[in-house]
Amino acid sequence: MASPHTTALNVPDLIQQKRDGGTHTAAELEALILGYTRGEVPDYQMSAWLMAVYFRGMTPQETGDLTLSMARSGDLLDLSSLTHTVDKHSTGGVGDKTSLVLTPMLAALGLTVAKMSGRGLAHTGGTIDKLESIPGWHPELSDEAFLQQAREVGLSLVGQSKNLAPADGLLYALRDVTATVDCLPLIASSIMSKKIASGAQTIVLDVKVGAGAFMKTPAQGEALARAMVQIGQHAGRNVRAVLTDMDAPLGRLAGNSLEVQEALATLRGEGPRDLHDLCIELATEALTAAGFPDRAAERAEATLRDGTALARFRAFVAAQGGDPAYVDEPARLDVAPGRDELLSDRDGYLAGVDALGVGRAVLALGGGRERKGEAIDHGVGVELLVKPGEHVRAGQPLLRVYHRDGRGLERARALLLAGLSFSGTAPTVPPLILGRVG
Amino acid sequence: MASPHTTALNVPDLIQQKRDGGTHTAAELEALILGYTRGEVPDYQMSAWLMAVYFRGMTPQETGDLTLSMARSGDLLDLSSLTHTVDKHSTGGVGDKTSLVLTPMLAALGLTVAKMSGRGLAHTGGTIDKLESIPGWHPELSDEAFLQQAREVGLSLVGQSKNLAPADGLLYALRDVTATVDCLPLIASSIMSKKIASGAQTIVLDVKVGAGAFMKTPAQGEALARAMVQIGQHAGRNVRAVLTDMDAPLGRLAGNSLEVQEALATLRGEGPRDLHDLCIELATEALTAAGFPDRAAERAEATLRDGTALARFRAFVAAQGGDPAYVDEPARLDVAPGRDELLSDRDGYLAGVDALGVGRAVLALGGGRERKGEAIDHGVGVELLVKPGEHVRAGQPLLRVYHRDGRGLERARALLLAGLSFSGTAPTVPPLILGRVG
Repeated sequence: MASPHTTALNVPDLIQQKRDGGTHTAAELEALILGYTRGEVPDYQMSAWLMAVYFRGMTPQETGDLTLSMARSGDLLDLSSLTHTVDKHSTGGVGDKTSLVLTPMLAALGLTVAKMSGRGLAHTGGTIDKLESIPGWHPELSDEAFLQQAREVGLSLVGQSKNLAPADGLLYALRDVTATVDCLPLIASSIMSKKIASGAQTIVLDVKVGAGAFMKTPAQGEALARAMVQIGQHAGRNVRAVLTDMDAPLGRLAGNSLEVQEALATLRGEGPRDLHDLCIELATEALTAAGFPDRAAERAEATLRDGTALARFRAFVAAQGGDPAYVDEPARLDVAPGRDELLSDRDGYLAGVDALGVGRAVLALGGGRERKGEAIDHGVGVELLVKPGEHVRAGQPLLRVYHRDGRGLERARALLLAGLSFSGTAPTVPPLILGRVG
Repeated sequence: MASPHTTALNVPDLIQQKRDGGTHTAAELEALILGYTRGEVPDYQMSAWLMAVYFRGMTPQETGDLTLSMARSGDLLDLSSLTHTVDKHSTGGVGDKTSLVLTPMLAALGLTVAKMSGRGLAHTGGTIDKLESIPGWHPELSDEAFLQQAREVGLSLVGQSKNLAPADGLLYALRDVTATVDCLPLIASSIMSKKIASGAQTIVLDVKVGAGAFMKTPAQGEALARAMVQIGQHAGRNVRAVLTDMDAPLGRLAGNSLEVQEALATLRGEGPRDLHDLCIELATEALTAAGFPDRAAERAEATLRDGTALARFRAFVAAQGGDPAYVDEPARLDVAPGRDELLSDRDGYLAGVDALGVGRAVLALGGGRERKGEAIDHGVGVELLVKPGEHVRAGQPLLRVYHRDGRGLERARALLLAGLSFSGTAPTVPPLILGRVG
């Protein structure tokens, strides 16, 4: 990637400058990041610099410049032939099938989604894995077909075939082993570098807050959201962020086929309240950011009522090889036949269901992968029969486990049980939407 | 080196602990340092840890434990068969021939010096190089001969044949390229790890302060001295430190043969005042630290008056193959025949002679080495004909350059000229001894 400005680099001087509380120019950051990506700046200098950044922070200008350099370290998707492009990012959740509902809604609203998505790893799911529950659907499209489908259907979704922001992958791996992950400008630039390289003009961010999320408090979540919105503005993109609660899983189902079923129900206007509301909220923010704020929420909700979002999803599935019959008959999707229920051992209120525990349970059942490249069982998963805040009686089923011949069942039950909490009185359940930044 | 306590090591946790202001146990530091020395802890983790130490510092207990682990990373000299062992360290100066005078004084005072010394690099000289100006003298002794000579003569001095504190060399090289040199506990542990591995029970430290030294102010020098004395106490050694001014070179001569001549004059009681005083000061501190404080200064001075220190030096030179005739006739030492003088261009006071400039001039003349292993010309050097604070007249010679066929003369003159400063009124010359810690 050619760059408008690079400079001869003295890395120890640069580290010292940050160590002493100085600020870097765009040219210095460009030289550092591209030098690191090319292997010219060694890991031991980069990790010392990262630790200095941890202590000294970065100005919004520096954070923006850093992110642009990271984006420029690899391929930049050119979506300029498309109109009203929009991308969505979630900081990661369990049972988060929002993209499956939101992206066809956005297409139905006249925006264009031409998006790269990832696969799941460890306890977090991936949109590509979920879509692969639909027989025939595949995430491989040529560059031309990717753009053509986005133009025609308003929605195309592929795997990460491009070399997007390789500096981010290198930096993240280094931060992970040098205690420099937990640093706001580095977290924000990591997320935004890939979004900026992905080319969409409008970006909506779902920043998860809570025990099961990276950001534990609303204040932390808001700071991250603000940093990301600033980076987007620095890059000339329209960015808005929503802060959402992530103590319990979103919706009632976790696991690949099960989540597609729940997404399809939501596209029919029959989804669980939290997922339904979140999709409307994010669609409203996307419309507003893209410059179409008039009656945005109302129009977003209409796409779920009038079937236009479902129609877009059906066309999208068919365009990428999937059998649209499964869209209309979700019960035909492969769900593992084994059933097991966890019963309440008391009368009272269900106070919480630990999202991380649910994610790990799905992983234990074979529905996720420990290492990249592993095959997964799309049919297993967990269903929340009761949501936090509801009253339960002793012996009442709380959770249903969908397993394949008992594989991982014992461990899954233990993980789920450990994540349940109860209360004698009606607990306060936090609202789903905690705030907005943009 | 076996260690009394090692622990299973999670390096990212350790970095995070220091990053968050925690303190490490001795076992954690031992595992980190020995793991790094063995190549098990990678540079990129160590540099992140070093930067965290830069920001968070270390407690005296941690600094002491770190230093002991660094000392244990390689060979530990066993001097237990010798009595009243003493070592001396200077933080580095130009024209600093103190060791040549002090070590035979200490031997004459009944202490035992069994010491490893280094060679010069860049603008700093090395005791081994200076002694090699004496024909026949060599720095190679078997372990047995080294101890035997120390017992018989009270003084043996060899090159760094042992693998002393290899962790220090590795850490220093890493700090040098990651902006983590300038950190008090790391500087103190670097110096003291080698001294502790060198085995002497008593250690005297000459901490140089001033424009030509690493520590620019007396307060910085005192903080370093205090940290080193604390490390020594932690290691069960007797340590005292003297803070000395290092704006101008010590004595009047810089260059290998020239410094030996000046040292021999000092051993005869005819040396320049500053060198004479510093040697008595350091000998006094060594006697006091070793437990013999009675009339220490007086007894130290007597060794220069009554010839006992000179006799020890002669015996030492002879024991390591040198021709003692040169000790008695220093004029026979090879001094380069070329002479050149820098004259004052004004009437006034000489305010300063930059020590660093003098060191670099000697290097330019061929009297030092740019890279390890290079041969040097022992005969070249610089003589201060006027010391800072003295009045000068236009045309009066200020400096004499001893050169070999004009080699490097032009560059040496330029370096020396750039380092001269003048004053219209009598300047305040700082005292040589700025303070004591111990």
